[in-house]
Amino acid sequence: MSLLVTGSIGIDTVETPFGKRDDVIGGSAIYFSYAASFFTPVRLVGVVGEDCPAEMLNVFTGREVDTAGLETRKGSKTFRWHGSYVKDMNEAQTVEVDLNVLAERAPKIPDKFMDSKYIFLANTHPVLQQEMAGNLKHAKLIVADTMNLWITNERKELVKLLSKIQGLVLNDGEARLLTEKKNLITAAHEVLKMGPKFVVIKKGEHGSMLCTEKETFVLPAFPAEQVVDPTGAGDSFAGGMMGYLATQGVISSATIKRALAYGTVVASHTISDFSLGGISKATREGIDDRYHLFKQATAF
Amino acid sequence: MSLLVTGSIGIDTVETPFGKRDDVIGGSAIYFSYAASFFTPVRLVGVVGEDCPAEMLNVFTGREVDTAGLETRKGSKTFRWHGSYVKDMNEAQTVEVDLNVLAERAPKIPDKFMDSKYIFLANTHPVLQQEMAGNLKHAKLIVADTMNLWITNERKELVKLLSKIQGLVLNDGEARLLTEKKNLITAAHEVLKMGPKFVVIKKGEHGSMLCTEKETFVLPAFPAEQVVDPTGAGDSFAGGMMGYLATQGVISSATIKRALAYGTVVASHTISDFSLGGISKATREGIDDRYHLFKQATAF
Repeated sequence: MSLLVTGSIGIDTVETPFGKRDDVIGGSAIYFSYAASFFTPVRLVGVVGEDCPAEMLNVFTGREVDTAGLETRKGSKTFRWHGSYVKDMNEAQTVEVDLNVLAERAPKIPDKFMDSKYIFLANTHPVLQQEMAGNLKHAKLIVADTMNLWITNERKELVKLLSKIQGLVLNDGEARLLTEKKNLITAAHEVLKMGPKFVVIKKGEHGSMLCTEKETFVLPAFPAEQVVDPTGAGDSFAGGMMGYLATQGVISSATIKRALAYGTVVASHTISDFSLGGISKATREGIDDRYHLFKQATAF
Repeated sequence: MSLLVTGSIGIDTVETPFGKRDDVIGGSAIYFSYAASFFTPVRLVGVVGEDCPAEMLNVFTGREVDTAGLETRKGSKTFRWHGSYVKDMNEAQTVEVDLNVLAERAPKIPDKFMDSKYIFLANTHPVLQQEMAGNLKHAKLIVADTMNLWITNERKELVKLLSKIQGLVLNDGEARLLTEKKNLITAAHEVLKMGPKFVVIKKGEHGSMLCTEKETFVLPAFPAEQVVDPTGAGDSFAGGMMGYLATQGVISSATIKRALAYGTVVASHTISDFSLGGISKATREGIDDRYHLFKQATAF
């Protein structure tokens, strides 16, 4: 079923112990779309500035990603992020960030996308996320991501958003910040009280956790021997998760669990190389093979 | 089958965000024995000083722990440890430590224990561990634990020990220190080259990992909402693991995986209260129930 994502598109400079890449494609919507497109057609809504090289957006050529919602805004500049994982592969240090076009108005959702059933609101201002959620009247499942900036500065709007969506994806530090609870299960249950039916907490190299009112599901990360660049791991995880869910029709405990496992596996491809280098070498067959390996590596 | 453990017995003072306990029973052999005794009879070899209150050693009353190898040494003092988890529940800060009797000669293994098949050499000087391993001629499976002190100061002897045992249990920081590899899978494979057939890496609240030459198995921690005192979690994990293995007769990939899951579950009981308060409230039935819950909480 139709999956729509709206989020950032950026030009990244990334440093890791394995090297440095200047001006490579990045951003939450890019990683998400690539990851989800292994499972289902994706509708991308995002905005870049006129400085964005056209060939940089050719990454989806041959893939089922409809870029009708990709706006190139005249007079604006593309979002740029320069991060370093040299000191700690688990947490990026932001060397420089220029919000540029992301600080302006949100991109418009094309009319033909308005019937979308599965929606992922990647991290942006919670007022914009609320607006998007409100516009998409045919949504069956709306899941959002967020970040520390909005938790700290726009808590009221974020809490309003939470009452309007079904799922929230966030990392462990953000869950603790949002709820002021140290224990992640306790934190997840605090989030559930704010509205969502399920919460997914991403723990980077330590895996992820799903909480619903009745159930807790814990998953380690895929045991990868080589992590070259963690950028986009969380967005690829969300993309694999939502992409798989959109193919299932049913949102149940069983399908969400499998969706988390698929998200984990797709993210393991992303981190094996810089930018989209890892995930673009993956195939659906390779993802399925790794999914079964992952099942074996966690079953007892 | 007969399971023998040799390790420390201590009088602990522990501080956590939930309070402080002075002079409570602790030590690797104590936690291990209690944990393993849910599965199989345990033979305990250890030594205390004459200052150790007799009633403190009554913890095993009514349990299948044979304390014939427990020596009370005249003129010596019991090992004491004062640790704090107030700043970080994942890593104890040692406030004070007195090795006392642990710095002297090892306790004697009683003759009637000499036919033991399953052996756990809890953390102590690797020369003593080698001596124990050499004496137990009927051993079918010898697994050892170690710590940063020996890795740093007695590497040569530790490496010698590794060539004589089948399994090593250690935590993530120790695995990295021993092998100088950051990635835990790479580190585990470096350890395997030194002799053991399997390596178990404990990651505290992030679970554990098993590596053999052919296989990697990853397991999250049991999703616990309340952690009161992490002391003894690793030793209880090892006790549950070895206790279960000793009941199986076969040491295979399948039995070791289940053993890790049982270790995880037993450790989750230990951390729910101070000292032996948590684990002593557990029953074998409760452990089996939680094992099945854990299976559900990780299966997809």
